[in-house]
Amino acid sequence: MSGTTWTLTVAQFQLEYGLTLPSTTVCYRSWGTLNHARNNVMVICHPFTGSVDVEKWWGPLIGSGKAFDPKHYFIICANVLGSPFGTTSPLSIDSSTGRRYGPNFPSTTIRDDVRLHKLVLDHLGVTSVAVVVGGSMGGMTALEWPLCFPDLVRRIIPLATCAKQSAWCIAWGEAKRQIIYTDSAFRGGYYPRERPPKQGLAAARMVGLVTYRSSDSYEQRFGRKLDDPCSHVHYHHQQKGDDNTVCNTTKAQIVVDHAEHPRFSAQSYLHYKGATFATDFDANCYIHLTHKMDTHDITRGRVSVADVDEHTALSSVLRTLPPHPLIISISSDVLCPPHEQKILADGIPEAELVIIDSMAGHDGFLVESERIDAAVVRYLRHEFPEFYDD
Amino acid sequence: MSGTTWTLTVAQFQLEYGLTLPSTTVCYRSWGTLNHARNNVMVICHPFTGSVDVEKWWGPLIGSGKAFDPKHYFIICANVLGSPFGTTSPLSIDSSTGRRYGPNFPSTTIRDDVRLHKLVLDHLGVTSVAVVVGGSMGGMTALEWPLCFPDLVRRIIPLATCAKQSAWCIAWGEAKRQIIYTDSAFRGGYYPRERPPKQGLAAARMVGLVTYRSSDSYEQRFGRKLDDPCSHVHYHHQQKGDDNTVCNTTKAQIVVDHAEHPRFSAQSYLHYKGATFATDFDANCYIHLTHKMDTHDITRGRVSVADVDEHTALSSVLRTLPPHPLIISISSDVLCPPHEQKILADGIPEAELVIIDSMAGHDGFLVESERIDAAVVRYLRHEFPEFYDD
Repeated sequence: MSGTTWTLTVAQFQLEYGLTLPSTTVCYRSWGTLNHARNNVMVICHPFTGSVDVEKWWGPLIGSGKAFDPKHYFIICANVLGSPFGTTSPLSIDSSTGRRYGPNFPSTTIRDDVRLHKLVLDHLGVTSVAVVVGGSMGGMTALEWPLCFPDLVRRIIPLATCAKQSAWCIAWGEAKRQIIYTDSAFRGGYYPRERPPKQGLAAARMVGLVTYRSSDSYEQRFGRKLDDPCSHVHYHHQQKGDDNTVCNTTKAQIVVDHAEHPRFSAQSYLHYKGATFATDFDANCYIHLTHKMDTHDITRGRVSVADVDEHTALSSVLRTLPPHPLIISISSDVLCPPHEQKILADGIPEAELVIIDSMAGHDGFLVESERIDAAVVRYLRHEFPEFYDD
Repeated sequence: MSGTTWTLTVAQFQLEYGLTLPSTTVCYRSWGTLNHARNNVMVICHPFTGSVDVEKWWGPLIGSGKAFDPKHYFIICANVLGSPFGTTSPLSIDSSTGRRYGPNFPSTTIRDDVRLHKLVLDHLGVTSVAVVVGGSMGGMTALEWPLCFPDLVRRIIPLATCAKQSAWCIAWGEAKRQIIYTDSAFRGGYYPRERPPKQGLAAARMVGLVTYRSSDSYEQRFGRKLDDPCSHVHYHHQQKGDDNTVCNTTKAQIVVDHAEHPRFSAQSYLHYKGATFATDFDANCYIHLTHKMDTHDITRGRVSVADVDEHTALSSVLRTLPPHPLIISISSDVLCPPHEQKILADGIPEAELVIIDSMAGHDGFLVESERIDAAVVRYLRHEFPEFYDD
């Protein structure tokens, strides 16, 4: 039942914006086995900073009896272009220069990811996808799958996502990029591997971390609690020596703690999470993916009449999506608020909208795993009784 | 009817956290005249990045027949400690070193501002304040006035504010500080006057600008509109020469625009506003004020029983505030959401809560001037008929 990670390399891959990537690698992970009809396929689309290791970010949903059950489905999750976790990205070597792409990695779109991942399905002999599921950026990808390949996908489950990237989210992306540009270690993206702009990436991640939750959830978790000075770490006044009681300063050295102000737990949380992220992720990849999300607009190039109004254009595209999707909202989501999923539910034929009442904010699509699991299991058993012969 | 700006210097000023500032200057502006009873006093408390120039940020509320009417009130607005607009701050000269305080400017609290501004009232012979009004950080100050001087203040009008800085806002403050620290020009706060960390300050401001509005307001204003390439400006591909048609690149050089991605109007808005702010404000002052707001907690040191629960502590302090305040909320405020003003309204005796239904977000307390003006005029005429002899 455990998954296996694979890579597939294609000789060249044409991008939506016109450029062609030579020798493109796609990393994917699969669980379970393809049935005889080759149609028990579940595609999981990962969010912004996720990877093919679904166990790491949607772990409670995967396993026997769960929403993502390899007993019933052949499950596949592929890494998107520009992500640092295995698929071709700014970290890959540009064969024309022999150096990493870095900031010269060409712009990609959600549709590029779908078309690239379709090559994986082709390689595996898949001719029909039962369901595509994804949250946040993964939800954008879930929406694009049947639009790019209309006869391939039977059902979709988009969570905490939108038909087009909103102005507010475009603004967040821009603010985060400007934060990274502020780090002089960024050097226009031409930073050496051993000296990446960790401080800027950590600060950008902190901004993300605040937007991913809600005011209520921060209040409940942290309130005005002060930090245990040794629980995370301070940049200044580091304790030194090999005494076992010293604070661990490795991660927190990326972020800076000035002066004598009281230190609140909410701050330490951001420091720790920001610094950890900056160690694991790559700044050029981060920037690339924020631009990719900005391109998300399911109506782009799909509406023939030039002067049609936005609402009509959106409706005309939504109605071409597979009927009876399960759409999941988190009530306190400020990034992709419930009314954006209501637009999806109003436009896609026979849609079911489940609003999960939670203070978890946007991250609710990851955090509220128990309620999401229950909704998805119920939905899948209803839509695909043929896969559940128990 | 136009205001006049003054300064008052006190020989020394003791701060709440123990340090004493020598020779402290407070900048204030006043409109109208003190009546014979010396009690027609209206104190306006400015928000985070505001100044005593109320005309600049609450202009539509000031004037004849308006909420802040110098015909009826002696109106005064004083600049807070640590703000770059006239009162002693990190920009001031530390007499012990002959250099600017910079990052060594001591921590101050909202209560320090109230006690310092009270010295201005003493200087002017004011013995009773009719009303204190303020939004956001100014609302924190409005709450602290009667708590610091219980017999002085008759009424308060706090807008878009809270009894204590929330964990979410603490997190925002921390993220913004980390952004500024990321700018190598910051140099731990010891930047020369001519080379301030403008890029970091602009990026921090951008984050603020996104939080000050709502997703809906960005959507309505910007949507997915692309930028007119000359309406603001690009860092790269600057046009040069003295041709009248060139773009103005001065401000936008602070922020960076990389590569060939589509440029959305929402991005240009942030670039322009961020860069303008970074030219007008000071990074050490910005950091100082975010820390000041983090200290805001009206229960601090005011509850005698150590183990009393938070809710009881808050109630016991709120009930000592002057009765019948006018409390104003903006329905879409994500920074100080309406439920925080509901806590105030539930705790302060005979409170009136007005929730303004608006998509303007936190900035609604500035933007929704017409509805705020109407509510405040009605309230003031009811509470202080003696000042309105027309």
